[in-house]
Amino acid sequence: MEAPEFKDFAKEMVDYIANYLENIRDRRVLPSVEPGYLRPLIPSEAPQRPESWEDVMADIERVIMPGVTHWHSPKFHAYFPTANSYPAIVADMLCGAIACIGFSWIASPACTELEVVMLDWLGKMIGLPEEFLACSGGKGGGVIQGTASEATLVALLGAKAKKLQQVKAEHPDWDDSVIIPKLVGYCSKQAHSSVERAGLLGGVKLRSIEADNDNRLKGEVLEAAIKKDLADGLIPFYAVVTLGTTSTCAFDYLDECGPVGNKYDVWIHVDAAYAGSAFICPEYRHFMKGMETADSFNFNPHKWMLVNFDCSAMWLKDPSWVINAFNVDPLYLKHDQQGSAPDYRHWQIPLGRRFRALKLWFVLRLYGIENLQAHIRRHCGFATQFGELCASDSRFEIYGDINMGLVCFRLKGSNDLNEALLKKINGRGNIHLVPSKIKETYFLRMAVCSRFTVSEDMEFSWNEVKASANEVFAEKN
Amino acid sequence: MEAPEFKDFAKEMVDYIANYLENIRDRRVLPSVEPGYLRPLIPSEAPQRPESWEDVMADIERVIMPGVTHWHSPKFHAYFPTANSYPAIVADMLCGAIACIGFSWIASPACTELEVVMLDWLGKMIGLPEEFLACSGGKGGGVIQGTASEATLVALLGAKAKKLQQVKAEHPDWDDSVIIPKLVGYCSKQAHSSVERAGLLGGVKLRSIEADNDNRLKGEVLEAAIKKDLADGLIPFYAVVTLGTTSTCAFDYLDECGPVGNKYDVWIHVDAAYAGSAFICPEYRHFMKGMETADSFNFNPHKWMLVNFDCSAMWLKDPSWVINAFNVDPLYLKHDQQGSAPDYRHWQIPLGRRFRALKLWFVLRLYGIENLQAHIRRHCGFATQFGELCASDSRFEIYGDINMGLVCFRLKGSNDLNEALLKKINGRGNIHLVPSKIKETYFLRMAVCSRFTVSEDMEFSWNEVKASANEVFAEKN
Repeated sequence: MEAPEFKDFAKEMVDYIANYLENIRDRRVLPSVEPGYLRPLIPSEAPQRPESWEDVMADIERVIMPGVTHWHSPKFHAYFPTANSYPAIVADMLCGAIACIGFSWIASPACTELEVVMLDWLGKMIGLPEEFLACSGGKGGGVIQGTASEATLVALLGAKAKKLQQVKAEHPDWDDSVIIPKLVGYCSKQAHSSVERAGLLGGVKLRSIEADNDNRLKGEVLEAAIKKDLADGLIPFYAVVTLGTTSTCAFDYLDECGPVGNKYDVWIHVDAAYAGSAFICPEYRHFMKGMETADSFNFNPHKWMLVNFDCSAMWLKDPSWVINAFNVDPLYLKHDQQGSAPDYRHWQIPLGRRFRALKLWFVLRLYGIENLQAHIRRHCGFATQFGELCASDSRFEIYGDINMGLVCFRLKGSNDLNEALLKKINGRGNIHLVPSKIKETYFLRMAVCSRFTVSEDMEFSWNEVKASANEVFAEKN
Repeated sequence: MEAPEFKDFAKEMVDYIANYLENIRDRRVLPSVEPGYLRPLIPSEAPQRPESWEDVMADIERVIMPGVTHWHSPKFHAYFPTANSYPAIVADMLCGAIACIGFSWIASPACTELEVVMLDWLGKMIGLPEEFLACSGGKGGGVIQGTASEATLVALLGAKAKKLQQVKAEHPDWDDSVIIPKLVGYCSKQAHSSVERAGLLGGVKLRSIEADNDNRLKGEVLEAAIKKDLADGLIPFYAVVTLGTTSTCAFDYLDECGPVGNKYDVWIHVDAAYAGSAFICPEYRHFMKGMETADSFNFNPHKWMLVNFDCSAMWLKDPSWVINAFNVDPLYLKHDQQGSAPDYRHWQIPLGRRFRALKLWFVLRLYGIENLQAHIRRHCGFATQFGELCASDSRFEIYGDINMGLVCFRLKGSNDLNEALLKKINGRGNIHLVPSKIKETYFLRMAVCSRFTVSEDMEFSWNEVKASANEVFAEKN
């Protein structure tokens, strides 16, 4: 394919995309296909000779769209939002054209340097303590990871390297095989499943400790767990504090847990994957009180800040623990300017990395802070609206607090009843929700996800829930 | 930004991209900026109010381009190629518009199912043994990883889980802390640095063993290392066989190492990150002889097969070792169809994943196998051409064989002389190369990288090398 054809094809795709997104509300949010639907729709082998781009375009509606779950429909309320915006799509086009691999500064200085400055912009936008920012002139700085799960793992590995060095200094006769089995990390039972997975990947114990009745981790509970492990001869090294849990968007008490971590020299990693975007609004920053006690902090602009996946922003107060932990530096990756700018390959699990800072730059400039704040506040308002609709029907109860753009709710009654309700809702296919369960209580999660959502959409979604409940009760009786 | 503005902006970007790529040859391949160049060019904070897209467009040439290393210039010969093609750019636009997160089948069935079938297409194109393919109906199947380094790590972690289970069955009284320090993996000293890094990340010993005089790992050397470790009470569990090393594109003897791995129950992972794309040409498949002995295989269509980064194709004969090793399955990610289609989140390190199979689908259809083969053969031909030019100048010597699109060469004489040559070449900034070093011999690597390369470009690059050598000798005398 040469340039003239590309121009026709790409511009046709631009129109298709605008049309898809502007009319996404009209599509069935959850596809009705069965596993294996796609294979019979396309040949069993790649073609020998090129096809026309018109044929490829035509196959999008025939092959792909019937199997797409439309995450950007106002009728999509599952998981948490994932971002999608026009500026980010255009930035990714440029990223694809430059197509540099930014593993070192010299491999494309702009790729590294824009990332350094964008993470400063972003850090300032959420009021992050200065020692996390590169512009402070200290050790700290930010990096774009692919996902929050990678940030959790990178922080865990940095914390592990740090504690190994400390313990070896105290006990020169202990080697890794003596120390590693003693290491123990902590998170709340409400932490994301990727924290447990990071423990498995990192080969260390990860203790899930009980949150309080509001599903928030308290400092005294963390301290009790650390003390018990110390008494048992174990070595506490890492704790994940979640700001905005997946199940209910609950906020751990960072201002309690952080000082406990500092007291026992336990690395504090703050995971605000979803809710962190809300910190661009000053009224939500009380949830991040105590951030100065953290060693690392992460949130996903690719969730709630209109920067397309993947763009997970992570800051480290002292990145050297991560950088030195796995620093392998072959000659073909060395360059003359090493040390005067970050070589981001040392900050992450993969070697290769795309020019993702472009997406941040385009989104921040083309929305401006004001419009991004408005986006967050609008979503929070829709959650309040849904909560009020829900509270107006005496068959329903809200589970816990309404935090950010998430409403957890259930029919008063058994878990079975609520499982039947969810099955009914998703079976109708007009809106899509997923459930969660805490201490044997099963509930439904309604996350506001789409940037196209308007107030009428919330009414539509509520009416779907209500109609499904009617059907469930009708079938029961 | 709303749809009408997006259309204008995106179409302007399409024209910019075509213009950038079609005229990339005219840009200085290596930027002349110093570390810290970018920060003064932009404000120190994000704007409160939105800017115009025209201002953002204008800043690409002002802020970004001066700091870009142009990986797609025919004058770029560093590292290995990274892919860039028009069909892949358009596919990524669609990926950005759908913007689903394909962590489970239900999260977007098309995202998972197209990936399953595309990995079958690709496996068939390179003649991969059937048991690696999902369409065989067995356990095997493929997955798109972000990078080859992640594939190496995922395979290592799968191999570790498998060996732990085996050893525990034999020694029920041994726990992880007894077994893990005994585990040992292997690779050639010429393996990519990410293999050593995977060992560090996975917390296991990774032994680098000597390749032969052609920089290829032989089966008998691997076997001797395994036997010695067994005699020392260690537990061999993993070996990486490299097809196309980074330094010289040397090929380990898979047909020797594979059977050794099978004999000692050592997981064989084949890393063909760069060279694997050449296996779409039957004349290069002799290098993959013995593939039926491998447990996992990986190559990067995002290097040499015109699919933009990231698209690293990995196949596993028995993915269950990887899937079960870190399977954490919270309620909010469960769905009714579990088990009847892959949930790819279990196959990888991160949780989230983009709809990357679209890029493969577009590229395979819009080039066709014939044109992709022609691309590979053209690059190999350019390497031969450069090798002949180099051989025609008696001051130079070719280091090792010319394999695929890579020529390793040096000035006859000291390493210092060659370091001076490379400094001169990169200092002139007209072409870009990186060096490597094997057993104290320093040499330069000329990788053919751009899909825009024509025969005259190779002459230009050679003339740059020759002119730089002239300068080096002139300064010396």
